[in-house]
Amino acid sequence: MRIEKASIKESNDHKLASHNEQLSFLKQQLQPEIDLETIISLLQDFQIAIPSWALGAGGTRFGRYSIGGEPSSLDEKICDVAIINDLTKSTASISLHIPWDVPEDSVAVKEFAASLEITFDAVNSNTFQDQPEQEYSYKFGSLSHIKKKVRNQAIDHNIQVIEYGKALGSKSITVWLADGTSFPGQSNFRTSMKNTQSSLKEIYNALPEDWKMLIEYKPYEPNFYSMVIPDWGTSSMLAEGCGENAFTLVDLGHHLPNTNIEQIVAVLILKEKLGGFHFNDSKYGDDDLTTGSVKPYQLFLIFNELVMGMSNDSSANDLAWMIDASHNIKDPLEDLMQSVEAIQVAYTQALLIDRNMLSQAQNENDVVVCQELLQNAFGTDVRPLVREARIRNGGSIDPLSIFREMNVREKLIEERGKSSRATGL
Amino acid sequence: MRIEKASIKESNDHKLASHNEQLSFLKQQLQPEIDLETIISLLQDFQIAIPSWALGAGGTRFGRYSIGGEPSSLDEKICDVAIINDLTKSTASISLHIPWDVPEDSVAVKEFAASLEITFDAVNSNTFQDQPEQEYSYKFGSLSHIKKKVRNQAIDHNIQVIEYGKALGSKSITVWLADGTSFPGQSNFRTSMKNTQSSLKEIYNALPEDWKMLIEYKPYEPNFYSMVIPDWGTSSMLAEGCGENAFTLVDLGHHLPNTNIEQIVAVLILKEKLGGFHFNDSKYGDDDLTTGSVKPYQLFLIFNELVMGMSNDSSANDLAWMIDASHNIKDPLEDLMQSVEAIQVAYTQALLIDRNMLSQAQNENDVVVCQELLQNAFGTDVRPLVREARIRNGGSIDPLSIFREMNVREKLIEERGKSSRATGL
Amino acid sequence: MRIEKASIKESNDHKLASHNEQLSFLKQQLQPEIDLETIISLLQDFQIAIPSWALGAGGTRFGRYSIGGEPSSLDEKICDVAIINDLTKSTASISLHIPWDVPEDSVAVKEFAASLEITFDAVNSNTFQDQPEQEYSYKFGSLSHIKKKVRNQAIDHNIQVIEYGKALGSKSITVWLADGTSFPGQSNFRTSMKNTQSSLKEIYNALPEDWKMLIEYKPYEPNFYSMVIPDWGTSSMLAEGCGENAFTLVDLGHHLPNTNIEQIVAVLILKEKLGGFHFNDSKYGDDDLTTGSVKPYQLFLIFNELVMGMSNDSSANDLAWMIDASHNIKDPLEDLMQSVEAIQVAYTQALLIDRNMLSQAQNENDVVVCQELLQNAFGTDVRPLVREARIRNGGSIDPLSIFREMNVREKLIEERGKSSRATGL
Amino acid sequence: MRIEKASIKESNDHKLASHNEQLSFLKQQLQPEIDLETIISLLQDFQIAIPSWALGAGGTRFGRYSIGGEPSSLDEKICDVAIINDLTKSTASISLHIPWDVPEDSVAVKEFAASLEITFDAVNSNTFQDQPEQEYSYKFGSLSHIKKKVRNQAIDHNIQVIEYGKALGSKSITVWLADGTSFPGQSNFRTSMKNTQSSLKEIYNALPEDWKMLIEYKPYEPNFYSMVIPDWGTSSMLAEGCGENAFTLVDLGHHLPNTNIEQIVAVLILKEKLGGFHFNDSKYGDDDLTTGSVKPYQLFLIFNELVMGMSNDSSANDLAWMIDASHNIKDPLEDLMQSVEAIQVAYTQALLIDRNMLSQAQNENDVVVCQELLQNAFGTDVRPLVREARIRNGGSIDPLSIFREMNVREKLIEERGKSSRATGL
Repeated sequence: MRIEKASIKESNDHKLASHNEQLSFLKQQLQPEIDLETIISLLQDFQIAIPSWALGAGGTRFGRYSIGGEPSSLDEKICDVAIINDLTKSTASISLHIPWDVPEDSVAVKEFAASLEITFDAVNSNTFQDQPEQEYSYKFGSLSHIKKKVRNQAIDHNIQVIEYGKALGSKSITVWLADGTSFPGQSNFRTSMKNTQSSLKEIYNALPEDWKMLIEYKPYEPNFYSMVIPDWGTSSMLAEGCGENAFTLVDLGHHLPNTNIEQIVAVLILKEKLGGFHFNDSKYGDDDLTTGSVKPYQLFLIFNELVMGMSNDSSANDLAWMIDASHNIKDPLEDLMQSVEAIQVAYTQALLIDRNMLSQAQNENDVVVCQELLQNAFGTDVRPLVREARIRNGGSIDPLSIFREMNVREKLIEERGKSSRATGL
Repeated sequence: MRIEKASIKESNDHKLASHNEQLSFLKQQLQPEIDLETIISLLQDFQIAIPSWALGAGGTRFGRYSIGGEPSSLDEKICDVAIINDLTKSTASISLHIPWDVPEDSVAVKEFAASLEITFDAVNSNTFQDQPEQEYSYKFGSLSHIKKKVRNQAIDHNIQVIEYGKALGSKSITVWLADGTSFPGQSNFRTSMKNTQSSLKEIYNALPEDWKMLIEYKPYEPNFYSMVIPDWGTSSMLAEGCGENAFTLVDLGHHLPNTNIEQIVAVLILKEKLGGFHFNDSKYGDDDLTTGSVKPYQLFLIFNELVMGMSNDSSANDLAWMIDASHNIKDPLEDLMQSVEAIQVAYTQALLIDRNMLSQAQNENDVVVCQELLQNAFGTDVRPLVREARIRNGGSIDPLSIFREMNVREKLIEERGKSSRATGL
Repeated sequence: MRIEKASIKESNDHKLASHNEQLSFLKQQLQPEIDLETIISLLQDFQIAIPSWALGAGGTRFGRYSIGGEPSSLDEKICDVAIINDLTKSTASISLHIPWDVPEDSVAVKEFAASLEITFDAVNSNTFQDQPEQEYSYKFGSLSHIKKKVRNQAIDHNIQVIEYGKALGSKSITVWLADGTSFPGQSNFRTSMKNTQSSLKEIYNALPEDWKMLIEYKPYEPNFYSMVIPDWGTSSMLAEGCGENAFTLVDLGHHLPNTNIEQIVAVLILKEKLGGFHFNDSKYGDDDLTTGSVKPYQLFLIFNELVMGMSNDSSANDLAWMIDASHNIKDPLEDLMQSVEAIQVAYTQALLIDRNMLSQAQNENDVVVCQELLQNAFGTDVRPLVREARIRNGGSIDPLSIFREMNVREKLIEERGKSSRATGL
Repeated sequence: MRIEKASIKESNDHKLASHNEQLSFLKQQLQPEIDLETIISLLQDFQIAIPSWALGAGGTRFGRYSIGGEPSSLDEKICDVAIINDLTKSTASISLHIPWDVPEDSVAVKEFAASLEITFDAVNSNTFQDQPEQEYSYKFGSLSHIKKKVRNQAIDHNIQVIEYGKALGSKSITVWLADGTSFPGQSNFRTSMKNTQSSLKEIYNALPEDWKMLIEYKPYEPNFYSMVIPDWGTSSMLAEGCGENAFTLVDLGHHLPNTNIEQIVAVLILKEKLGGFHFNDSKYGDDDLTTGSVKPYQLFLIFNELVMGMSNDSSANDLAWMIDASHNIKDPLEDLMQSVEAIQVAYTQALLIDRNMLSQAQNENDVVVCQELLQNAFGTDVRPLVREARIRNGGSIDPLSIFREMNVREKLIEERGKSSRATGL
């Protein structure tokens, strides 16, 4: 199903007067010191990829509760992304996970997606689960495995994923390596690291020139003593070992307690090794909650670094933005729209910071003023700006409301049934 | 020094037009659904005590950098609190720490404070440092010490502190027990606990009928293997063992990583054992940073519980609100004003939550809407309401600005010198 | 399959000379100061229950790798426990999880188990997964659910579990409540707590007089914002609300980072609310690793408290000892035998501590000597004592070796196939 | 005071028979598979530097309790190290901290130390405290400061420290940079990092060719929002930016909760950037407890990596071993001897691991056997080997006992008084 432009327009019309009032108040408050038109325009251009594996109900090792109407084919997944994009006009691409979403007929898939105005973002390999037809098991690792033949199988899989991506128009591959150990002594750390570097290099060598390789890191889960790539230091070391088109990808949930993530972002920008983001939120571990639902100020501080990075003509201008969350108890589409909104709000708030005044206060070590500048931006109600960008792009003023008013989930259940199940986590 | 009402009025006058515009926009947006007059009135009544030990430069075990103009007597400390109160009209009381602030002549001290419109909040005992004249050392504990004579000394000190408090008009004593161990086996946990309970009970027995005893908890520091009262469970168990006027005090920085503090607050309200708060913020441990500077959303979620608790005629209606922070690099008075503002903002945002709609959404397990309701309140720019309450109370629209415009710190340095040093941490 | 006594004896005979040498050296070193015969006898009596849900391959939300020869029926599970018990003579009971192990014909099941010398330990309810025939979903909670009808269903299930347990000779029910929320605002903490208390009380009222109710706590997972019973304070509060036969159960993996678990154990013993243990080990969260594989000193410190508690005629004399681990990459039976050994080693080391000298050193605050006393016990190679207890009980000197020599896993695969799958996690 | 060789010999003679029995049992158990003579010889050669700043009572921000007899001059500090070395024969060097231990007359200091058989290990700079004569304050940073003139002052100080070290025969400088921020926005992360790199490079350029620069990292304290060098990734990045003689120094207490430190050690060895260690132990943060007192298995796992690293002719053969602890409640000399013993025990246990069998088990992914091999080594009572190495070196069988029997602390108090105070933390 699609959300008709007419429906969106009709729904918007009811809310436009109130919106315009709020926007005009904001303009009056912030202009001319801040150029709101530029901010709105940046927001209009800002696109976040939706992961194909997060359109159905997620679960934990203790179980999973169905949502109903889950997409059970790649086409249906693309449709779901199109629904979100129709409403938000900010999610015009999908990120595929192989082998959960093998595009058998890539021409047809690409055409179908194009008909819904959806393109293909980073492709993702999967060597953390065994597939039925697979020769060797990944139980004890894949790219880091002690046996060359297992590593080769995992390397070949990654190269195959690149091939799929080329056919669809992707420009990057994301490698999340779940390899690691659950007990002290289980492997030799240095041997594993050398194997990993060598495997990644082989994949990197198969990368088209205009592609990026994005390397994730994560301190634990599904291995509980060590992960082969536990932190940004290891990820960027491996990326450097591959070459200039290999980068580190930051997943917000992949850090030890209390980590200062925004500082990592800044250092990666400085090293020109920041490649992209998996947005989500968490309180304990890799909780994969809705972006901004637990630590909105941290999200804002990360965007503070990104805005600075992007204004510098650095490599940070071409980052991969992606949501990576698990929808255990919310409707996945509603959840994703909440994440999109939270990301846009944080981005906008960061754009409001007066960079000159901040530099000056930092230069004078005026810590009180530094804090005031950040918190004034964060305390500003920027939602009218986000809505305005959506309106100008043809999206909805209030995506969640219209999603419910139009009974989208009910219609999806009607179409697909109550117990359809999406591949993914 | 004092901040003259005339100066405040003059400064306010310049900003009143802009403020009124913002306030009237907010009224237009939120009324009549939300009764802003009630909220403003609640804000006007909301008072936060200032700790006497946080008016000078704080430090770490690695060192301390002077601020200049620090108050070196109790009278000067009271003056500093009066300055903050002149500007914010929300800090009309001071919380003393004995023996850092022994009120030798309590009548005079009380009169002096009254002349500045300052009263006395909870008194605090200190058995984590040895005093020169002291017979027994607290190196290995005080109220939990293995030797009865040491415990007696600590009990007597606490009773002495109550006496001081009675003379000044305090109505509660806060006990922070730094006792604990730094090495496995150093003490018998159960013996320590029994000693602690028995010591607290002796102090409790000396408590006037209309007083409260507030018992803090903290998982580590200054002891690094165990603390005698590490968590809310232990604190409330000990409070129950004392009697109905003993309560748990929550210091926001006294928790293990990732603790859900707002849930603890809710459970303590349910048990009718929540006694009060030490506000601050932290990223790692007991960092004692400015309230709201790191995790403003957590502060809001805590106030969400408090607002619900206070609306229920429960014991939560009579809580002790106090800031407990350390000012290592900011001007302590500026830092405290930032904390006061952050607390008021969080309180106001929590007051904005539509309780009926939230209950209904919770009743229907509509998690998406629950989140929307909280985040809409949090995303609202409530600063005009906080300012309005300050104006009505006779305070400043913008306390930080006027503090700087009037060169308060410079004048304090002139008065007290560059190297005066406040007692405290 | 069973392990024949003759095989064990034959295998032991080869190793007996060397064992006796080690044992006699230990006796010479430690006696007469320490009464090794008493220690061996305590070890002989020490029994640890095996959970029925941990006999197959465990997994994470990212996947699961089969082991082969997994027990696919309750009888086969009992057989697996009997194998471990044949070898270790320390695991003569099984703890069932309903509905994973419904004993349809309880008389037959009980007889079969008895024929293998296996009895039934605590029964466990499960309200964290929906069963096909179930009327209401537990997606948004069970015993804490906002709707009384859902709570009733969960209460009835627990009472049903008690019935199963009565038929089998169990004397306790363990309640692990996975209820909680994943987003701020999702539920009212106080309402959930009241519902939980009331539901537990209804179950408690159905408890036979000679039974115990054991209430677990856990800070997060599978809910990622709050758990209804996050910590020992909440669990013991609820247990108190039920009655004197309700207790707290400590699962070693259910704590926030850096928690001092041994102190919790001590406090629960003091409160007479310690009911039992789920042994495992972890580095990050509820990793469910082999007991003693990551933090053996912590395990020893916990047993230090337990040994003291048990020597005091306190309620700690009748604790439920159980392993609760997940076997993602090791053979479950081998893994369990490693856990059993680690528990026995820690227990023995704790029994070696000279209690009189420790009390004296604590009395004198001689921290250096306190540490020496603990570390001397921990540094002693006590494995000969553990082996001696096993030999005297008719078990194997070296269970892991004989398990491999006899090709037990291979035989189980032959019997049950490569892809049999055990119910459980 | 010195410990006379005759006293040591006499004390040893009483314990020699029992020791020889234990040693000969161990030989019988472990030989010929393991070459104990080589292990004893490695232990004899293993030397750990004692930090000059840890010979007095340590404290926290909440206070400090005197020990009595603390060394109040550099000569007295050297004496204290000599006492430990007389007893353990494993601490023949001291690591100085400037300006706490300025060697005014370096020739005399060096001669005096030599007369006590003590040499000079790494020198340490201090730019986290202001000194009276200092022109610019380090309140807002030193090597990373926004102002070049402050950075220059800190650079000059470090170069001055190198000069002191050259005069004394040191071969390395350890830089612990306490710089950072306590509030979001306080500084620009990238600017700070560039300033830090540039400052370190200037110091590096002043380094003699045969010296090393060791760069510490630490995630928080004394700054509580960010540290300029928070983790190994940043430290090794900066070391790489300096040159091949710059290395990362690992302080065991400088990590976020749950960090896998042994993996960091392995990766640094692989990168040839591991420079040395600050040994201590901790449960929560940078607790600076006695090495091995809380997590002895972690210490063993770290030595497992080090033993592998050292056997490979890698840069790991020339590491700086140092204790860095704080002695808040124990006698510092006793505490240090406990740390030395714990380090030696862990080293010995790691040397016992059968490397060939471990490699083979790792090669076969036999996780159970991998764990058994490590835990068998860890479970072995290796103290007789450590004692034997001490005896052969002329040290004491039981340093702690003789220290007490000879009333060393009492004599130091007699010599130096009860309230002498050592410079340091």
